[in-house]
Amino acid sequence: MLGHPSSVLAPALFAVVEKMKLSGRKLLEGYLVGLEVMARLGRIFGAQAYEKSWHPTAIFGAIGACASASYLLRLSYEQTLNAIGIAASEASGIKKNFGSMTKPLHAGSAARKGIWAALMAQRGLTADSQALDGTFGFLEMFNGEAYSKQALHDRGKPLEILESGLIFKQYPCCGGLHSLLDNVIHLKRKEGIKPQEVAEIECRVHPHRIAYLDRPQVREGLDAKFSIQYCVATALLHGKVGLNHFSTESVARPETQALMKKIRITPGNDLGSFGSEVIVRYSDGRQFSATLREARGSPNFPLSEAELLRKFVDCATLIMSSSRAEKAGEALMGLDREDNVENILKLLVSD
Amino acid sequence: MLGHPSSVLAPALFAVVEKMKLSGRKLLEGYLVGLEVMARLGRIFGAQAYEKSWHPTAIFGAIGACASASYLLRLSYEQTLNAIGIAASEASGIKKNFGSMTKPLHAGSAARKGIWAALMAQRGLTADSQALDGTFGFLEMFNGEAYSKQALHDRGKPLEILESGLIFKQYPCCGGLHSLLDNVIHLKRKEGIKPQEVAEIECRVHPHRIAYLDRPQVREGLDAKFSIQYCVATALLHGKVGLNHFSTESVARPETQALMKKIRITPGNDLGSFGSEVIVRYSDGRQFSATLREARGSPNFPLSEAELLRKFVDCATLIMSSSRAEKAGEALMGLDREDNVENILKLLVSD
Repeated sequence: MLGHPSSVLAPALFAVVEKMKLSGRKLLEGYLVGLEVMARLGRIFGAQAYEKSWHPTAIFGAIGACASASYLLRLSYEQTLNAIGIAASEASGIKKNFGSMTKPLHAGSAARKGIWAALMAQRGLTADSQALDGTFGFLEMFNGEAYSKQALHDRGKPLEILESGLIFKQYPCCGGLHSLLDNVIHLKRKEGIKPQEVAEIECRVHPHRIAYLDRPQVREGLDAKFSIQYCVATALLHGKVGLNHFSTESVARPETQALMKKIRITPGNDLGSFGSEVIVRYSDGRQFSATLREARGSPNFPLSEAELLRKFVDCATLIMSSSRAEKAGEALMGLDREDNVENILKLLVSD
Repeated sequence: MLGHPSSVLAPALFAVVEKMKLSGRKLLEGYLVGLEVMARLGRIFGAQAYEKSWHPTAIFGAIGACASASYLLRLSYEQTLNAIGIAASEASGIKKNFGSMTKPLHAGSAARKGIWAALMAQRGLTADSQALDGTFGFLEMFNGEAYSKQALHDRGKPLEILESGLIFKQYPCCGGLHSLLDNVIHLKRKEGIKPQEVAEIECRVHPHRIAYLDRPQVREGLDAKFSIQYCVATALLHGKVGLNHFSTESVARPETQALMKKIRITPGNDLGSFGSEVIVRYSDGRQFSATLREARGSPNFPLSEAELLRKFVDCATLIMSSSRAEKAGEALMGLDREDNVENILKLLVSD
């Protein structure tokens, strides 16, 4: 599915698990419940949902977080139906707000709404027991008549986590430019590329990606996360792209801005939807290139535990010391063996 | 406009005013701001919004409550744009949930979301500054391409409260059956009709109303509020229709159920959209009738202050003594002269 299930499910689950003093294993069970619900909704809506419709993370997230919370709160079958129905009336999130702080807020709002709906149902609040489908239901209201009635009734399919798996993002920016960054960092390491000798960096990506990722000018971090120019220049300068690169100060750096001007984006229909080729040309005529059909982090091309931990530490050090971030990251890696998630949560509070 | 602006604005305004210790006059100013915003959205969406679209009270209410809260919180112009943008991503409420507790919950949710959006914007959260219109904006997402671009730009029109005014509902049930109840209560008082002598009660209403108000069987209060049969029988038996008539016990009363069977609903295209005629036929051949083109409570046909107060007391006595309800009602009638609304709110807490 397209969407970011974990951005909604993780905060929702940690909140419920903390309140109920549950184990890490329970949290992971709750995650699976919410993930499968979100993935099923994604299948029912179909791929066009992302292009034409509401923010999928937001609207599927409210239902998914509600399913996770209903599971952990041990709601009865009837209560769960009511909870889903309440969440169906809470779900929202317009794409017009992309590019503002309200876009990431959608994920947090969806988590809050999902838990709230489950708590309301637990207290006896009722909703339509079939709020998702039919006239004026969730599916029709959020996706017109276009949703797949077949996928709606596809029970007993293999779990989505087994069939499709999860994609982990190595860089805290748009997934559509991840394979470019893999290529650039690979070239920098392998060839020892010096940014000052570079005359041009040609980035070949699918035209679908160019439509929203060709951003030669960026003014703040939220823009920069969707800019091939900014992210590729950053990767070539620093050999990595971390959360601290999306601050206003980082965006303003002259050396980054100068390198951004050397980047040329060209259409690459032969590379698949999320593939890319990077060609670095030196002033003296030498050139280096690298190609990928998909970014690292997918089930076919997984990141190592050490790489995942490194990304966590990179993000977490914005609010805590690196020693503490490492400790918290290690604890999270052992989530499935932790009897009381509160122990981990204590490590996740900012310094 | 179609919708129930006060059901969203009143709780939102009382909450903000209590927190900020504001006067009744400020509350009324905030009410006007929210009401005009909701009414303008109603005009932009057009009348078809109610028939085909989302629950208008819920979606317009979130924006209206946000406008009211932004006004009372004295947000800057820029903060107010952000607040409205956040509320545009929070607004929701599917009609599939009509008939369940989630339907009235929509009003409370909209109030909460509106205030929340204003508070987020006050703390610096950003949203698209033109979140209402354009591609993927509020209007397009909630109403497709059907909204009126002309009404969108109709600034400087007379205030809706002056042009259309407010309709007050005398009975705590669907507005579509109010003129019927006025007729029945009028006949009962004027003719002294005895339910046991009645052979048939013919209710003539517009076919649009029949579609959702012809409910010969009701099982609980939420159904009963949309049942011509139940409400007309209750009005004829008791000479009034109050909130206590929508309890499960009241719905189950044998004398009401027996009278409901004598009610016949026929289409009355000649009576206007919300008009009605009631014809009561006795077994001995006598008959009595009454006709109205609109229910009492509209600006053309206003209720007296005493009648409004009586409705308030009838509703409030579900949670407080009648002496206290009368005191609270009198205090609310003097809202415009109250320096600190907290004094009134203290009277509104249940016994």
